[in-house]
Amino acid sequence: MELNERILQLLRERKFSELKPIAASMNEVDLAEVFEELDTTELPILFRILPKDLAAAAFAELDRDTKETLIHKLTDFEIRSVMDELFLDDTVDLIEEMPANVVKRILSQSDKETRKYINDILKYPRDSAGSIMTIEYISLHSDMTVAEAFEKIRKKAIDSETIYTCYVTDNVNRLIGLVTAKKLMLSPKDITVGDIMDTNVIYSYTTDDREEVALKLTDYRFLALPIVDAEMRLVGIVTVDDAIDVIREETTEDIAKMAATASSDVPYLKTSVFEIWKNRIPWLLILMVSGTFTSLILNVYESRLNAISSVLFACVPMIMGTGGNCGSQASVTVIRSMSLGQLEGRDVLKVLLKELRASILLGVTLAAACFVKLILLDNMLFGFDGYTPVRCAVVSAALLLTVVLAKIVGCSLPFIAKLCRLDPAVVASPFITTIVDVLSLMIYCMLAIAVLA
Amino acid sequence: MELNERILQLLRERKFSELKPIAASMNEVDLAEVFEELDTTELPILFRILPKDLAAAAFAELDRDTKETLIHKLTDFEIRSVMDELFLDDTVDLIEEMPANVVKRILSQSDKETRKYINDILKYPRDSAGSIMTIEYISLHSDMTVAEAFEKIRKKAIDSETIYTCYVTDNVNRLIGLVTAKKLMLSPKDITVGDIMDTNVIYSYTTDDREEVALKLTDYRFLALPIVDAEMRLVGIVTVDDAIDVIREETTEDIAKMAATASSDVPYLKTSVFEIWKNRIPWLLILMVSGTFTSLILNVYESRLNAISSVLFACVPMIMGTGGNCGSQASVTVIRSMSLGQLEGRDVLKVLLKELRASILLGVTLAAACFVKLILLDNMLFGFDGYTPVRCAVVSAALLLTVVLAKIVGCSLPFIAKLCRLDPAVVASPFITTIVDVLSLMIYCMLAIAVLA
Repeated sequence: MELNERILQLLRERKFSELKPIAASMNEVDLAEVFEELDTTELPILFRILPKDLAAAAFAELDRDTKETLIHKLTDFEIRSVMDELFLDDTVDLIEEMPANVVKRILSQSDKETRKYINDILKYPRDSAGSIMTIEYISLHSDMTVAEAFEKIRKKAIDSETIYTCYVTDNVNRLIGLVTAKKLMLSPKDITVGDIMDTNVIYSYTTDDREEVALKLTDYRFLALPIVDAEMRLVGIVTVDDAIDVIREETTEDIAKMAATASSDVPYLKTSVFEIWKNRIPWLLILMVSGTFTSLILNVYESRLNAISSVLFACVPMIMGTGGNCGSQASVTVIRSMSLGQLEGRDVLKVLLKELRASILLGVTLAAACFVKLILLDNMLFGFDGYTPVRCAVVSAALLLTVVLAKIVGCSLPFIAKLCRLDPAVVASPFITTIVDVLSLMIYCMLAIAVLA
Repeated sequence: MELNERILQLLRERKFSELKPIAASMNEVDLAEVFEELDTTELPILFRILPKDLAAAAFAELDRDTKETLIHKLTDFEIRSVMDELFLDDTVDLIEEMPANVVKRILSQSDKETRKYINDILKYPRDSAGSIMTIEYISLHSDMTVAEAFEKIRKKAIDSETIYTCYVTDNVNRLIGLVTAKKLMLSPKDITVGDIMDTNVIYSYTTDDREEVALKLTDYRFLALPIVDAEMRLVGIVTVDDAIDVIREETTEDIAKMAATASSDVPYLKTSVFEIWKNRIPWLLILMVSGTFTSLILNVYESRLNAISSVLFACVPMIMGTGGNCGSQASVTVIRSMSLGQLEGRDVLKVLLKELRASILLGVTLAAACFVKLILLDNMLFGFDGYTPVRCAVVSAALLLTVVLAKIVGCSLPFIAKLCRLDPAVVASPFITTIVDVLSLMIYCMLAIAVLA
């Protein structure tokens, strides 16, 4: 933080010769943070002080708004030079983020090859491996010697996202092997790449889901994963840093959905109040209106319940709440396991059986505790005399049934969602709460009337 | 999957000469999956067929139970050879997972140096950077030439977790710079490491929280992060794959806590029913008993509410539910931003202000929708005649107040938790739901009685 303030100060006092070496020695991620604190007019000044490659690297790390503001302040020549320095996948991210007029300006300053590449990548579906891969990798041929391989690596190093995993292709560009820089370094200079390459290559297809690809890469602890087309031709790689971004984004999305809100790519403090409203209101409205079901049930049963005893009514929130908690425990556990790739559709029966057994254990524990609580707390301590042992038993029995039902609903909904090709996370907590609310209320009212009326 | 079955078949038919080359060409992660499907007696057979280094690599990827079973089946000599091949951080993981008698056997088969190292690492707190770092890195001196650096890298490569980032230390082992393998490859052989090293090194301390360290490493898109002691002496590195593991574990823990359940390191299908019960029952019990508050309030106000109209009662679950949903939206958003490092304690006022404004927008929208819903659905469509416009207005006003209150509670509780050095995730959804339930119920009952009684 102190360093950031120092830079701001030097910039504002126009002590550029002092600022230059300090800024030039900084990491691009830290520089991006400084940029984001600057005023519109200061942005291009700091940008122009930096060495060209560092300026481009810092640019790639900026948030969307700062990027856009800065682009408006740069000359065509400067934009062209940023485009030259940027890795192609960062260029694609930029194109996807910017409004149409900015995109037009960026594309007009990119060379033909870059434009062609951008168009190719943008053709892949938004959630596919193709959309997150880069074509800036190093490919070798199996008949190259290790010395020749190093020659090629050195020549291509500047423009490659990673030089530490090199891919071996045949003469029609089909992926046939890989060799790490480590292996190359440890091998004699005169043997061929074909002799030392690993032919058991793990890869993904351009059309694979980007989350699956990111998970695969990290599960295997790779630094990069090759991406092939349907003919096994190598078309790109996904690097570990991009995989981490994907996982982080998808996790944020999952967590947001579990809390019944849409997620935004923008950090919280930069999200506008209206944006927050827009992200949250749809689910809140749906869930509020779905509360109609519970009020319907209550309207129907209320007088009959009250005729027995008003204390029965006071237990409604506790039963509904416990049901909701049980349901979301089960659903969230299942959803997380699914997104870590530990559970698949065919495991549904195993999960159901496990949840059934767990729910009986949990239900019995809770029902027993509830019975004791009603007698000791509500009856003896607070002195509400409606809590007779029989009524307490009915409440506890309803609780047991509710817990079992909530767990079954909670663990099966994610599977049903997956079957319907919906995102399991969407059906988590709040949606399940609504279903469980209705079911538990019906169980309770019907049980109470059947036994006590 | 097909490959796995093929291997199982070959193993069971004892066609070892056919099995050997297939298994030897496999990735250790895939092999670990095969191991986990084997019977106890088959485990050592497959293990012995594999080349020594691959066997050790696959061993490191096994789940806890399979590791333990396999160790019991191995000879002392075999254990010693696994220990020799394992990276030291994997050895530490193993020691931490195994029961005492197995640990004793493992330690007795490790050399003195390894034992010393294990003891050193185990001294660091469980959640510190020190506990996840490895000492198997490459350190260079600034007066080495590039050629000498490559010499050292080649010599140390086999025993190093990564050779792609090398750290430069002075003669008392203080960290003074870093140089990547890429930079070394692109530099002339005769200049010194000091000439090309990057002196602006980003590092962490052994005592730093492991989650913060993992976040730092991934934010900077590094492949490894150096870890220093209080005197800036380099003591280890954390590699990107271990950072990903930490992030994944911490995220799973966060998500589990938000759903009011403890998380386990074991995949869902391998978790026993009793374990599931143990993870889930504490929160369920606490939350159920805390339902006593809502039933208390209901017991107190019920008769007075019913004297006005029984339909007022039917709206209780809807108001409580909406409040709970609003609260968890706010808290989950704040918690996720905190764990991504986008929000800090000092942002509390900004967050409060933003949530206040958002909650008024949300509250007004919901209240209006609620009013319309009550009139159109409950009154006109379902024909419950208790829903007079004044009563509907009271319900809507209570809803508005509840939404604002829920958002304020929801966004401030994580900050309060952080202040008290508690995990913000623990206070999420269910805990907040309980507080909001009580508050919203009181608002509703008091408002209804004040206006309508």
